[in-house]
Amino acid sequence: MSTLNLEQARSIIAGAEEKAKSIGCPQNIAVVDAGGNLIAHARMDGARIGATDIAINKAWTARAFDMETAELSRYSQPGGPFYVIHASNHGRVIIFAGGVPIRQNGEIVGAIGVSGGSEEQDTVCAQAGAEAFTERITEVGNDRKEIGSVSQTTR
Amino acid sequence: MSTLNLEQARSIIAGAEEKAKSIGCPQNIAVVDAGGNLIAHARMDGARIGATDIAINKAWTARAFDMETAELSRYSQPGGPFYVIHASNHGRVIIFAGGVPIRQNGEIVGAIGVSGGSEEQDTVCAQAGAEAFTERITEVGNDRKEIGSVSQTTR
Amino acid sequence: MSTLNLEQARSIIAGAEEKAKSIGCPQNIAVVDAGGNLIAHARMDGARIGATDIAINKAWTARAFDMETAELSRYSQPGGPFYVIHASNHGRVIIFAGGVPIRQNGEIVGAIGVSGGSEEQDTVCAQAGAEAFTERITEVGNDRKEIGSVSQTTR
Amino acid sequence: MSTLNLEQARSIIAGAEEKAKSIGCPQNIAVVDAGGNLIAHARMDGARIGATDIAINKAWTARAFDMETAELSRYSQPGGPFYVIHASNHGRVIIFAGGVPIRQNGEIVGAIGVSGGSEEQDTVCAQAGAEAFTERITEVGNDRKEIGSVSQTTR
Repeated sequence: MSTLNLEQARSIIAGAEEKAKSIGCPQNIAVVDAGGNLIAHARMDGARIGATDIAINKAWTARAFDMETAELSRYSQPGGPFYVIHASNHGRVIIFAGGVPIRQNGEIVGAIGVSGGSEEQDTVCAQAGAEAFTERITEVGNDRKEIGSVSQTTR
Repeated sequence: MSTLNLEQARSIIAGAEEKAKSIGCPQNIAVVDAGGNLIAHARMDGARIGATDIAINKAWTARAFDMETAELSRYSQPGGPFYVIHASNHGRVIIFAGGVPIRQNGEIVGAIGVSGGSEEQDTVCAQAGAEAFTERITEVGNDRKEIGSVSQTTR
Repeated sequence: MSTLNLEQARSIIAGAEEKAKSIGCPQNIAVVDAGGNLIAHARMDGARIGATDIAINKAWTARAFDMETAELSRYSQPGGPFYVIHASNHGRVIIFAGGVPIRQNGEIVGAIGVSGGSEEQDTVCAQAGAEAFTERITEVGNDRKEIGSVSQTTR
Repeated sequence: MSTLNLEQARSIIAGAEEKAKSIGCPQNIAVVDAGGNLIAHARMDGARIGATDIAINKAWTARAFDMETAELSRYSQPGGPFYVIHASNHGRVIIFAGGVPIRQNGEIVGAIGVSGGSEEQDTVCAQAGAEAFTERITEVGNDRKEIGSVSQTTR
């Protein structure tokens, strides 16, 4: 199982944090590994304390279902195929936008969850975190195929 | 981080309680500090016992998300961006009207939660509590700017 | 069912609070009614935030088992008849000293729970709260029999 | 209420992390603010995933009861005054060593929780984190009194 490590999780958080600063929206940012387990979390100064649990569980949800939480949300409305999925898994499933899987060579190696703003704000910050990882891989490995596969997922 | 103290919490409860009496609606009234932790609670004679937990968690929710619970409620309906947010944070998120942040010099220093009546009744009592704090600040500090900023928020 | 009301709960809290101040130990103080339901709570400035839940549940426990929590504690040690009773009732049973039933004419009408200091500090404050109620009854009703019955219980 | 911010929380984690590396024990490290709310968490590569919850709640416990969790542990043994306190507060109270309050000018402004090794390993890492904050204050403010007060607490 390929998985994120702490150093990578921190660079992902840094990417999301930079974006959060640039849009003026303090965020909770969390990264989980391939096992869905928390690697690192940061609550920016002024970010909502109620969003800590949500950021951590958005990251978990994105890995647990291997899709963006925004996509899961669409399936989870009344009448949808995953309606009330939030009640499963002891309340850990979050179906708002802002949870994004992290991929390496097409394989999911973890996920980022961001919570604190609107769904648009949370999404762009989570994507910035995911992209920071892609850029970093590219710098290190010059793996152009990777850029494409992550872009497909997060945009 | 500025925060409410017990004396202030009691004056906020007194403001809400007076309003509750005037409209003939016995209420549960709770006040939390800037960290979301309970400072004081009062259940008026005849108020519903099932509303104690709700009042305490409305206050927590208003601080945890830095907005009135009525506003959070609007975002949390089916199809909304925070749909089923009530399942996060181990069931502490209450999305009924009646939770109102308390501000001092524009900074959130705690919150009040009121539960026991209709959403209109809970709201006017919570706002009366918040306004009692503002008036009290004004009496002590004669800070006219504060009146405006709190009024904006609670009306 | 005779039960405490909010005014009485507040006078009980005031009695405990005065004692807490006199011994220099900021406390969480809670009062429940005859149904075990919270009437009022106050966290004094500087009191531990982890003791709020404990104070409320000490009061509940004292009413739920109609005995002081200090007495329940003695029965709840390894080898005792109520060993692991704390795991019942969804974690609400607190078996530290500081929960004291409140009696009127020999009947239990509620309870006080105090948490924030040592078992001795919590106990003297809870007893001061219970005694404030007795004195108040005596002043109002001049019921000398009541003084005796409460003294038996709380000393 | 003075409280830690994210930058301070990160320097505390860095202090604990450096110590954890030097003793060869990968750790979960968490820091909460004055309200007991999580600011930041890091799980070092190879640290136990079951210790994440424990680290976060050790930090919460150290703030909630304003004492080191090692001290709370001594009071919480069978026959002790806080026996089974772990069952209160919805399971958040951790009574193993490794949770240490963080002080500034004698006031508690947050706490660190470390989990992953033996109680000695967790304790030295948590203390290293607390001391990193003290040293940092001293560098910035040259406040020699602070060094003494924190040393008293964390050694």
